[in-house]
Amino acid sequence: MDIELLRTLTTPARTKILLCVIDGLGGLPHPDTKRTELETASVPNLNHLAEESSCGLTVPVGAGITPGSGPGHLALFGYEPLKYEVGRGVLEALGIDFPLEGTDVAARGNFCTLDDDGNITDRRAGRVPTEVTVRLVQQLRDVRIPGVEVLVEPVREHRFVVVFRGEGLDDRLRQTDPEREGVPPLPVRATAPEAEATAALINRFVDQARHVIRTHPTANGILLRGFAKYPAFPPLPEVAQMRCGAFAVYPMYRGLAKLVGMTVAPGGGTPASQLEAMKAQWDDFDFFFYHYKKADTAGEDGDFRAKVEALEEFDQLVPQLRALEPDVMIVTGDHSTPAVMASHSWHPVPFMIKSAWVRGDGVREFTEPACREGALGIFPAVDVMPLALANAGRLLKFGA
Amino acid sequence: MDIELLRTLTTPARTKILLCVIDGLGGLPHPDTKRTELETASVPNLNHLAEESSCGLTVPVGAGITPGSGPGHLALFGYEPLKYEVGRGVLEALGIDFPLEGTDVAARGNFCTLDDDGNITDRRAGRVPTEVTVRLVQQLRDVRIPGVEVLVEPVREHRFVVVFRGEGLDDRLRQTDPEREGVPPLPVRATAPEAEATAALINRFVDQARHVIRTHPTANGILLRGFAKYPAFPPLPEVAQMRCGAFAVYPMYRGLAKLVGMTVAPGGGTPASQLEAMKAQWDDFDFFFYHYKKADTAGEDGDFRAKVEALEEFDQLVPQLRALEPDVMIVTGDHSTPAVMASHSWHPVPFMIKSAWVRGDGVREFTEPACREGALGIFPAVDVMPLALANAGRLLKFGA
Repeated sequence: MDIELLRTLTTPARTKILLCVIDGLGGLPHPDTKRTELETASVPNLNHLAEESSCGLTVPVGAGITPGSGPGHLALFGYEPLKYEVGRGVLEALGIDFPLEGTDVAARGNFCTLDDDGNITDRRAGRVPTEVTVRLVQQLRDVRIPGVEVLVEPVREHRFVVVFRGEGLDDRLRQTDPEREGVPPLPVRATAPEAEATAALINRFVDQARHVIRTHPTANGILLRGFAKYPAFPPLPEVAQMRCGAFAVYPMYRGLAKLVGMTVAPGGGTPASQLEAMKAQWDDFDFFFYHYKKADTAGEDGDFRAKVEALEEFDQLVPQLRALEPDVMIVTGDHSTPAVMASHSWHPVPFMIKSAWVRGDGVREFTEPACREGALGIFPAVDVMPLALANAGRLLKFGA
Repeated sequence: MDIELLRTLTTPARTKILLCVIDGLGGLPHPDTKRTELETASVPNLNHLAEESSCGLTVPVGAGITPGSGPGHLALFGYEPLKYEVGRGVLEALGIDFPLEGTDVAARGNFCTLDDDGNITDRRAGRVPTEVTVRLVQQLRDVRIPGVEVLVEPVREHRFVVVFRGEGLDDRLRQTDPEREGVPPLPVRATAPEAEATAALINRFVDQARHVIRTHPTANGILLRGFAKYPAFPPLPEVAQMRCGAFAVYPMYRGLAKLVGMTVAPGGGTPASQLEAMKAQWDDFDFFFYHYKKADTAGEDGDFRAKVEALEEFDQLVPQLRALEPDVMIVTGDHSTPAVMASHSWHPVPFMIKSAWVRGDGVREFTEPACREGALGIFPAVDVMPLALANAGRLLKFGA
């Protein structure tokens, strides 16, 4: 299902859709108990909702493919993630709420350590503390390159974002990170003739940047990767003819929502305060994206117990979410983050959808194995949006 | 999922993957017992492995599509079988271990019977015995065509392989077999202008071949079909960054493995001796393709009992296969061959994968209905390779 097919089928309606994304929702069994995080957690409200929903498991990108946050969310928003790709530079910029413009070229930067011969000895500069990166970034801001504005922002530890702003910039560029040590950083290389001029500008920036930070004992070099422009995706509000609002504590997810044209509520606060904000704006939108982060963070930390607790915390929000009385309510994740792997994974993600028009399936629990038995089976995450729209009475018949 | 996407995501690792293909694995219930071959067989080792695995059913090509050995295996190797097609001439050549070169054009040949008017009266020449075909092929080798080397090899009964070797040959040719009797064989026709010269050469060969064998009472003509060049597929070892070894008794399967760039161990022997060979070379490869043929042979023969026994024989090999301690172990088939149909079929094929990262699914038996209840559901066989690589820690995250 492509987003462009939806464009031809959507029709306005007075219904409201609530998409709740529990980041990193899916898990794997704990080696001792043989139960996943969801199977371990006490989540009576989610279980109750599952009883009234159609359940299934979504495949975010494809079998065996572990999605980053970008493809995981784009799929849920209805965008085929292998087609609608977002470069790492743009994602990093989204992650710090950087206001990218359409002609900007963004890149992810790392401070690194170079030896006297210019070879890399540490690709992360010993993971310099964030406060050091903040100071180093301040120094990089002194670099001036004629013909282009260079904007540098610190991220965390050795990471920063650099944005090149100007006319005619092209992002068809190869990264400078050779992804190994003992060799010098690569020059930026254009992969299309149109990008030669941009490559030259950025190489000048890299040279001057190295000069500026040359005396730092560890962070005396930089590596750039993921050169990318802000992509022009078909806007969901236009495609689906509905007002879309995004409610998320963290910048990355607001950025992804903005990428598909959603109206983004102010970030920060807590899941509860974002829920309050959504409640306050309930009349302003037809589609609501509500993002809950903590399950992924705990999973990434390899903290099974913390992930269980995050799921239990979300469960406590469910009655208030239901009290909004959306016509269609979905709870799912953008990908799995099993605590036993301490990373995102490829495993299909629990999913449930409640509306007046779901086919019940006797699922009594919101867990991986129970959802597998659900009416929807295992299906691509990119099908979530058409299912949501259909259940909201927002899709016309296809063909006569 | 295309093999070319895998190329962008694979990363080297120290893990080992063992793909065991039981040829023709899937079956249908026996009319008396209502139990399939797998349900009838005593396969305690497979059942035990299923308990520790994620199970499912694979669809080799598509719903209702019965695969030949080529597409069945290519799908398991990660190649979309509708995209990566192998011509019949090439498959026949692979099946007799013929060392095809990249510029060769291979065709499958049949001896046929022609009447005095040159019309076909039997497309298989009464299925002449193999020893007759061997003598006739010897005669065909006397045919000399200037500008091209013609290599002819007997196969079985009325079948042979002919390979045209030379510069600038083109395989865009139509078969000479009209697929009915009472009409003469068709001339070879080029389907692209570049193939006209090749068509002319082959027509000269066909004319002279008929002259050479004209006195044989039944096999006095030939029919050629499946003109094909050895395809240039992206090599799996390169795409997946792993050393791939193939262990198979029969030439066809070694040929298919070679087609995707695997290193092929010497053939022949028995399943047990191939297992020993694999054990001896366990340090030499990261990915192992182990092929077990007998289940398909029995199925094709319509011999339910023999297929059950073949499955039981494989089951006895399972402890030794597991003793190799692969990080990822898969048991599946390239297609179903239900004994009650005495042929390949389109039915989804039992599949199981064991690794440290599978989501258990409570499947207790390695049978068609039990696998259908597995965590993986019914899924395309082309997803097997990404799943194998993911479970082996050999795939990077897609997107940030």
